[in-house]
Amino acid sequence: MEYQSLTKQALSEEANALRSKYNKLASLGLKLDMSRGKPNKQQLDITEGMLSVISSDADCVTANGLDCRNYGLLDGIPEAKKLFSDLLGIPTSRILVAGNSSLNLMYDTVARAMLYGVVGSEKPWCKLDHVKFLCPCPGYDRHFAVTESLGIEMIPIEMTPTGPDMDTVEKLVASDPAIKGIWCVPKYSNPEGTTYSDETVRRFAALKPAARDFRIFWDNAYAVHDLYPDGDKLLDIFAEAEKQGNVNMIFYFASTSKITFPGSGVAIMAASEENLKQIKSIMTIQTIGFDKINMMRHVKYFGNAEGILAHMKLHASIIRPKFEIVLSAFERELGGLGIADWTKPRGGYFISLNVMDGTAKRVFALCRDAGLTLTDVGATFPYKMDPRDRNLRIAPTYPSNDELKQACELLCLCVKLAAVEKLLGE
Amino acid sequence: MEYQSLTKQALSEEANALRSKYNKLASLGLKLDMSRGKPNKQQLDITEGMLSVISSDADCVTANGLDCRNYGLLDGIPEAKKLFSDLLGIPTSRILVAGNSSLNLMYDTVARAMLYGVVGSEKPWCKLDHVKFLCPCPGYDRHFAVTESLGIEMIPIEMTPTGPDMDTVEKLVASDPAIKGIWCVPKYSNPEGTTYSDETVRRFAALKPAARDFRIFWDNAYAVHDLYPDGDKLLDIFAEAEKQGNVNMIFYFASTSKITFPGSGVAIMAASEENLKQIKSIMTIQTIGFDKINMMRHVKYFGNAEGILAHMKLHASIIRPKFEIVLSAFERELGGLGIADWTKPRGGYFISLNVMDGTAKRVFALCRDAGLTLTDVGATFPYKMDPRDRNLRIAPTYPSNDELKQACELLCLCVKLAAVEKLLGE
Repeated sequence: MEYQSLTKQALSEEANALRSKYNKLASLGLKLDMSRGKPNKQQLDITEGMLSVISSDADCVTANGLDCRNYGLLDGIPEAKKLFSDLLGIPTSRILVAGNSSLNLMYDTVARAMLYGVVGSEKPWCKLDHVKFLCPCPGYDRHFAVTESLGIEMIPIEMTPTGPDMDTVEKLVASDPAIKGIWCVPKYSNPEGTTYSDETVRRFAALKPAARDFRIFWDNAYAVHDLYPDGDKLLDIFAEAEKQGNVNMIFYFASTSKITFPGSGVAIMAASEENLKQIKSIMTIQTIGFDKINMMRHVKYFGNAEGILAHMKLHASIIRPKFEIVLSAFERELGGLGIADWTKPRGGYFISLNVMDGTAKRVFALCRDAGLTLTDVGATFPYKMDPRDRNLRIAPTYPSNDELKQACELLCLCVKLAAVEKLLGE
Repeated sequence: MEYQSLTKQALSEEANALRSKYNKLASLGLKLDMSRGKPNKQQLDITEGMLSVISSDADCVTANGLDCRNYGLLDGIPEAKKLFSDLLGIPTSRILVAGNSSLNLMYDTVARAMLYGVVGSEKPWCKLDHVKFLCPCPGYDRHFAVTESLGIEMIPIEMTPTGPDMDTVEKLVASDPAIKGIWCVPKYSNPEGTTYSDETVRRFAALKPAARDFRIFWDNAYAVHDLYPDGDKLLDIFAEAEKQGNVNMIFYFASTSKITFPGSGVAIMAASEENLKQIKSIMTIQTIGFDKINMMRHVKYFGNAEGILAHMKLHASIIRPKFEIVLSAFERELGGLGIADWTKPRGGYFISLNVMDGTAKRVFALCRDAGLTLTDVGATFPYKMDPRDRNLRIAPTYPSNDELKQACELLCLCVKLAAVEKLLGE
């Protein structure tokens, strides 16, 4: 029965019952954490073989005779370009293989635009009075942190079940030349797990921005991070942009942080040949090159793109049960109460939980006081401001299954308690 | 006998003799390269053991229980900080351990200052009308490329046998608040191999800049890169700056690129606690962290600072003979002719050769046409302009000893031929 239709008397009784359960759980001295989108130890262990796949000097030589140990080759070894080209369906001519962090590549890309501009810019963005980015939200907190840090104004865009609200996106980019970019996590979005529909991707590719140097930051962080064998399919943004004569509009990012090792993976950037040429002309000043031995480790360990896909099935077998523990707890404890809704992602690293408007901060505090850490409320919005105070990003991957069950019990209890308190006007 | 005192007749005869030798060498189809400050294969091979020093999950855990494979820990694992602290005599609280490239750290440090300023800045440097750096030269081409790329005006400072001309440095930084930095390679400088004298270091530490946010970029690239057992001693810049209340003025850089693997080493930055705090507050937006497994590889392979010093003796035993081949060829072929002088470094990666004024470009072209690649003339100066057209940076480490002997023969011949041509007014 929905909480909203309960009498005040019934709500008070429910509140008492919930408080009694809460106090019991709070007294256990729990130490639980659902805040971090981190792979767990078991996931790291399945990649152990990569640690020893390179053990001798001979292992460090590419097919074309380049010594990975030495200086040289700014944009990655050919074998690594081919591996990611096959995996992501992007021509090698558009791929740059870099260091261990796609966030670093994204930050550097925005910073470079600030300092130099991009292809088509009249001047460096830092010389403009206003630079704005569109921010579909809830979204990835670290994207928003990059733009905020660099003094870029962020405009929230509502997420829909098919991706960002494209009517608004189209209208804004067409009318305001200060809008220079948009952050996108197009597959299994962070935190909702939404994969952009074919129509959304086509509309992105067909944007007609007022700014000639507008860029779509296409962070395909979960490109191959399916939980189920029939993973979501994302349309090829480059192919669509090509049809529209818009290929320079796409800055594409991906990494193996959640494929091999989060701290020691390999990140890639993909962009049109013209974009890459401009980027590399500056990047060659910034660095002599990235860690090519680590690229070779990835190449030798996986062999080919199929090797990566097979490996992702192992990851799925470890984390799918964790997603299912959370989702079945939500269904069982919160279903039908009219106080919460949540996404049911088929991949990625998060579940997005919307609690009753105006109660997310209270849920966070209740959980914290009973020993469960959640992602900060508001983290999924620009400037950390959730206008409805309702969104919680749930990260199921790091805790053990037992911890997760306990965490879900506590979380659902707090969601209910906060809702009852709200309805009672407490 | 000095060329300048030869008669025109004698010079003509010398020219003919040189040309005949040159033509013979040019006809051999040589392919020689003295342009790159790169370790050779033999040097890379002595580090082979580091490739397999980490082979299991258990190897990836730090003493305090951190899993190097996962996300986390922006500024480096404690073991790596300790290793570099012991090696360089800098407290761990001032050390940040990063990725594979100190150039990247330096570029990012200047770029960060442009976008945000440094401790003491009134505004980001990119918001100022003029930003200037002092550039001791001949110096490191990639330093100059960073400042040129970021639109910073470069002011050449003459190098002396004890380091940069400190009278000029002191006068300029005291009088011009637009001067925000100076590039220094204080030990075995690139390309001269000069180690700054104690007095020079003390005068740096005691600078009284007009700009409150002036920084010394102290690139200690060759901190432990001695060719001889009794290596040059460089005074501790932090200790000296501390005495002067100037500790925030120092940005210190080093890396293992020429200790382990040039493409897969570990870079460090050292700075005062106050500087590091400001830097990390921005860096945490830029990246989640650097490759900690690779840090652990370095820690496990070397064990401690003495392990690195012992390893550097192996490097010296490989490259010292190469320096000696070049220096003895210069002595034998060019000594007493009055047309060239050169440095005799006791460490580092380069020898600086000054040929007769106005002939460096000609020497470069003669060498190139006969199959020997030299570093571009002018590369060692800001804006690639050598005002006297005389400086050549000689990199002896990469070629084999036989190649090096051949290269020196050709180089000396070209130095002589260009000088004779010049004296003959050709």
